Amino acid sequence: MSRVYNFSAGPATLPEEVLKKAADQMLEYGDSGQSVMEMSHRSKEYQAIIDETEARLRKVMNIPDNYKVLFLQGGASSQFAMIPLNLMNKTGKADFVITGQWANKAYQEACKLCGEENCNVVASSKDKTFSYIPKLDSSKFNPTADYFHICQNNTIYGTKWAELPNTGNVPLVADLSSCILSEPVDVSKYGMIYAGAQKNMGPAGLTVVIIREDLIGNAKEGTPTMFDYETHAKNGSMYNTPPTYGIYILDLVLEWVENKGGLEAMKEINEKKASIIYNFLDGSKMFNATVQGEDRSLMNVPFVTGNADLDAKFVAEAKANGFINIKGHRSVGGMRASIYNAMPIEGVEKLVQFMAKFESENQ
Amino acid sequence: MSRVYNFSAGPATLPEEVLKKAADQMLEYGDSGQSVMEMSHRSKEYQAIIDETEARLRKVMNIPDNYKVLFLQGGASSQFAMIPLNLMNKTGKADFVITGQWANKAYQEACKLCGEENCNVVASSKDKTFSYIPKLDSSKFNPTADYFHICQNNTIYGTKWAELPNTGNVPLVADLSSCILSEPVDVSKYGMIYAGAQKNMGPAGLTVVIIREDLIGNAKEGTPTMFDYETHAKNGSMYNTPPTYGIYILDLVLEWVENKGGLEAMKEINEKKASIIYNFLDGSKMFNATVQGEDRSLMNVPFVTGNADLDAKFVAEAKANGFINIKGHRSVGGMRASIYNAMPIEGVEKLVQFMAKFESENQ
Repeated sequence: MSRVYNFSAGPATLPEEVLKKAADQMLEYGDSGQSVMEMSHRSKEYQAIIDETEARLRKVMNIPDNYKVLFLQGGASSQFAMIPLNLMNKTGKADFVITGQWANKAYQEACKLCGEENCNVVASSKDKTFSYIPKLDSSKFNPTADYFHICQNNTIYGTKWAELPNTGNVPLVADLSSCILSEPVDVSKYGMIYAGAQKNMGPAGLTVVIIREDLIGNAKEGTPTMFDYETHAKNGSMYNTPPTYGIYILDLVLEWVENKGGLEAMKEINEKKASIIYNFLDGSKMFNATVQGEDRSLMNVPFVTGNADLDAKFVAEAKANGFINIKGHRSVGGMRASIYNAMPIEGVEKLVQFMAKFESENQ
Repeated sequence: MSRVYNFSAGPATLPEEVLKKAADQMLEYGDSGQSVMEMSHRSKEYQAIIDETEARLRKVMNIPDNYKVLFLQGGASSQFAMIPLNLMNKTGKADFVITGQWANKAYQEACKLCGEENCNVVASSKDKTFSYIPKLDSSKFNPTADYFHICQNNTIYGTKWAELPNTGNVPLVADLSSCILSEPVDVSKYGMIYAGAQKNMGPAGLTVVIIREDLIGNAKEGTPTMFDYETHAKNGSMYNTPPTYGIYILDLVLEWVENKGGLEAMKEINEKKASIIYNFLDGSKMFNATVQGEDRSLMNVPFVTGNADLDAKFVAEAKANGFINIKGHRSVGGMRASIYNAMPIEGVEKLVQFMAKFESENQ
C-alpha cells in the first residue's frame, strides 16, 4: 500500500490513525458484535457514540450551553435554504457579503425563497475573481436585518476573514465548511455556524450546525419539516435516522484533534504548514500566490504560473509524483493545495521540494 | 470477535463480505493511494464508483431507460416533502393509503405543504393498528390526482402490499425503504420509487430515488434548490457533494446481491427465511404473528406473546444469547425480527430454535 498526499478541496484527506481505527472496528465496534454502520440509531450503543461526538465537539470548540449542536444531512447547499427559511422571520431581511461561489449561492437561495428585494449585498469581491476579502462599510449594514451571512473561508479562492464583521445585535451566520476545527473560534460571536463535514471533520453526507437557541423555532410557514431546525433540535438530531457512520467518523476525528492538543495546537500546525507554502510562493520566480496578506486562507492555497500549459504540466507531474488533486477550481485555473488538518507537515514540505525541483527544471 | 445476529429494523445488519471488503479498502481503494472517504467527488476515481453503482442498480432492478436514478440525502423523511413539492403540480391533488406511521408521515407532510384539502385518503388500516393492507375501493381514487402514494412494506407493522393498486395513468409513488432489493419489482409500474439505504442497501445517510423522467422539472415555486429533483437529475447526483462513502457501500452491497444471483435469488432466500419464522409462529402456543396471510412482510416479522412481562423476558434473554434489536416498535409492543437480505438463514434458524427453547422453558 502506498498512500498519496491528497490536496483535494473536499472530500479530503483524513488522519491515517482515524482510517486505521475505522478499519479495525468495521466488523465489530467494541464488544457490540456489530459494525457502527449496522447499529440501530435508537440503540444505547449508538446513543453513546452520538453523545460522545457532541460532547467532544462542545469541548474542542468551547461551545456555550445556549447553542444547540445539530447533526444534519444535505451539505452546506441545504443550509443555504434552511437559513433563510428559519431565520428571515422578523423583518424578513438579511445582509450578505459575496466573497465567492458559496457565499453567492447562500445569497441566491435566500433571494429565491424570500425575495431578492429582502437580500442586501453589503459588499462583494467579484471584481477581482474573489481574490480578497472586501473592507466593509458599516453604513451599508441593515441594523434590523434578521441575520448577516458570510462564508468565513473561501475554498475555491483561498481567502479567509481575518477578522469577523461587527454586526452588533444582528446574528452573524457563517459557513465554516472549509475552516472549522482549523483554529479556535469564539462561538459566542456567531448566531449560527454551519459546515459540511467533508473537509476537516469526516466524510461527505454529514453537516454540522451550531445554532444559538433563540434562533430556533420560528421557521416560516411552508418550511418542510426536515428543513426546520426545531425538528432536529427537539429530537437530538434523531427525528429521523441521522448519518450514523459519518457522525462516528467525526467522533474519531475529534479524538485525533484532542490528542494533537486541541484547536490551539491545530492552529499552530496549520500556520506552520501554510507559511511553508506561502513563503515558497513569495520567493518563487515561477509560482505566484493569488491571494495576498491577511486575507490568505490557512486551508486552501491557490497559485498559478501565469502559463496554462505550464500549470497543466505541473499538475500532471505532481500527480505522477504522488501529489494528487492539486489542480485549481475551473473558475480560477492554475493550482490549489488544500492543506486541511489531516495533511501532515511532511506532505507540505515534500510538495514545496517538488515545486522547487519543477521550477529549476522548467526555467 | 464475535458478531451477533442483528434483527434491527434499520440501520441494519450488512453482509459480512461487504464489511470485510470495506475494511480492507479503508486505507487504500485499489491503487488510488486513498480511502474512498477521502476521494474528491469530482475525481475520475470517484466518478467510476458512482457510475458503477448506478449501472449495477439499473441492472439488478432492471430499471428502464426513461427513469433517472438519484443518490440523495435526508432519508425518506425528506422525500415526504420533495414528492408533493415536485409532483403536486398539475391538479395539485394526490391520493394516499395510510398503512402505518411512515405512510402517514408522507400524507401529513403533503397536507402541510400543499393543503389538507388536496390530499385524499383512499383507505387506512389504522383501525387495527395497521396490521393489514386495506382492500381498496377504486371509486375512491381520484383519476386526475398528480400521484398515488403507498408505503410498500411497513417496517413497524410488518405488512407488505402483495399486489400493487392499479392507478391507471396516475403515477404510483412508493416508499420501498424496507423492501427494496428484497425481490424483483416491475419498475415500469411506478412513477417513482424511493428508499432510505439503511435497511437493504447500505448505511444511513443515502437515499435512492428512481423517478420517471417526465415527472422531473415541474417543481412548485418556492421549492428549495436542493429539494428539486431536477437539480440532482441534471447534475448526475453531483450538484453538491453526494454521500460518497454510502454510495460506495451500496456498490459493494449490489455486487454481493449479484453474486448471490440477483433479485430472483434474493426473493427465494427471503421467502425461505420468512417461512421458517412464520411457520414457527403459526405452530407456537406462546408466540403469535400480528399479521396474517398475504399481507405478511418478507422483511419485518412482528410477534407477541400477549404478556408484556413475558415479552420483556424474551427480549432480554434473546439479547443475552446474541439475538439483538428484537424488541418491537413502541407503537406495537412485543417483538419484531427484521430479516433483511443480509440476515443469513442460520440467523433465522437459530432464532427459531431459541424461541422454541424459550417456549418450552416458560410454559
